[in-house]
This record gives sequence, C-alpha cells and structure tokens, in this order.
Amino acid sequence: MLLHPPDPDLARRVAAVGKGWGGSFEVVDAPDWRRAVREFDGPVVHLTMYGLPLARVLPKLKGARRILLVVGGAKVPPDLYRLATHNAGVGHQPHSEVAAVAVALTQLLGVPGPGAWPGATRRIVPQARGKRVVGGRRGR
Amino acid sequence: MLLHPPDPDLARRVAAVGKGWGGSFEVVDAPDWRRAVREFDGPVVHLTMYGLPLARVLPKLKGARRILLVVGGAKVPPDLYRLATHNAGVGHQPHSEVAAVAVALTQLLGVPGPGAWPGATRRIVPQARGKRVVGGRRGR
Repeated sequence: MLLHPPDPDLARRVAAVGKGWGGSFEVVDAPDWRRAVREFDGPVVHLTMYGLPLARVLPKLKGARRILLVVGGAKVPPDLYRLATHNAGVGHQPHSEVAAVAVALTQLLGVPGPGAWPGATRRIVPQARGKRVVGGRRGR
Repeated sequence: MLLHPPDPDLARRVAAVGKGWGGSFEVVDAPDWRRAVREFDGPVVHLTMYGLPLARVLPKLKGARRILLVVGGAKVPPDLYRLATHNAGVGHQPHSEVAAVAVALTQLLGVPGPGAWPGATRRIVPQARGKRVVGGRRGR
C-alpha cells in the first residue's frame, strides 16, 4: 500500500501483523502520489461514490496483471478524477473507504480462503465455536 | 444498527447522512447486547476471523428473512461465540471490522446499484469523471 501523507507508526504496526500472519502486504510512503499514479504500470481505479458502478468497470479490468486501487480521505484532490484510468463506485451514497477497498478486492479476487499466507508463523484453524490458533503467539 | 456501548454523537451523524441520502439505516443504543442477540428473530452471524469460512455459512442463511450480523471491538466477550447461531470469517487473518461487515453484506445482497435510497433528497448521477449530485446540498 502506497500511503500519503506518510504514517510511520501505521507502517510499523502493519509490518508487525505481517510478521506473524505472513503475506507480503507492506505500507510504503508515497511522498509524490500523483507521480505514483501516473507511473503505475496498469489500470488505476479510483474508488469514489461519484464514479461509474463497479459492475460496469470490472469487465474492463479483465486480464490486467496489476491494478492500483486508490481511495482518498475526506477531501479528494480533484485531479485524481482525471489521473485515474477509471472512477468506480462500490456504492453511490457516503461510505467507508476501508469498506470500498474490501468490496473491490473481493469483487476482483473473491473472498479469501481459510489458508495461511506464505511466511506465516501462526495460522487460524477455522472453528464453529471459539478460537484455535496454531503456531506463534496469538494475534490481536 | 444496534450499538454497544452507546455513542449518541455517532447516531446523530449517521441520522444526518440518512436525511439527505435516504434509506432507513439507524443507529440504536443496545444497553443489553446479550439480550438483543438472544431475542433476535433470525440467525445471528458473528463475524470473526476465528469462525468458519463465510462461504460455508452462507448456504445456511438462504431463506432467512432477517439476519443479525455482529462484530466486536478489540476484546470480544467470549460468550458471543456461543450465543451466535454462526461464527463466520470473511478472512482468517486480522482485518477491519468495517471491512467484514461490508464484505458480508455484499456476499448476502450483492454490490449496491446506482439508484438512490427511498426518501433521498439528493442523489449521485454516476460519472466516468468528476462529480454530479442532483437535489439537496452536496454530501461530504
């Protein structure tokens, strides 16, 4: 994840989660976000309630090797609407940006399965009741 | 949404959003959340990374007229795992509770369409570029 403005504390906390639970997710500072958007090698999808319905944009992303999803804060710089390849809404009323990313990811990749991520030192064994964690110390 | 502990300021802000954008979403205090869960007239689905994969739980919800999704904060009271009809994970690594609700809702109901909610005084006209809002004052 490219993050602007930078938040070293968040980057550290996310890295700590990844250390136990595996995966390659990483928070990277993006001091010049416009440049990062312009130079991205693939479609840039700005998630905004003002955009076209996600269902209309998804078919255009078929075959893309890499996709950059962009969400803004309370005040989105207007030029992002122009710099993005697509402006797409997961809904057209005010909603959480975190929810927008989660819904877009599951529409693109499906709901994550029960398996652990590569490099995990601990993993959950899904249960009908209660908690079961194997390996490492318990997360959260 | 039943909320415990109560947060009157959040309830007020959500009500203000609904006033312009329509819909019947409402934040209601739940001073006794265990009672609300026990007396709910339908399946209670606790969203937790420790639960069974959502894909295994979804078929059991077919035909339910009402479903209560439950998410907890950092410390989930252990009896919730027993009180819930189902414990279901949208993922089995640490994740946002907001994301869990959003993913579960779209798995149950689909991604929301471009239309306005009943009672809206303003609505978005989805655009490839920029913003178009009809009626009311602009939201957010």
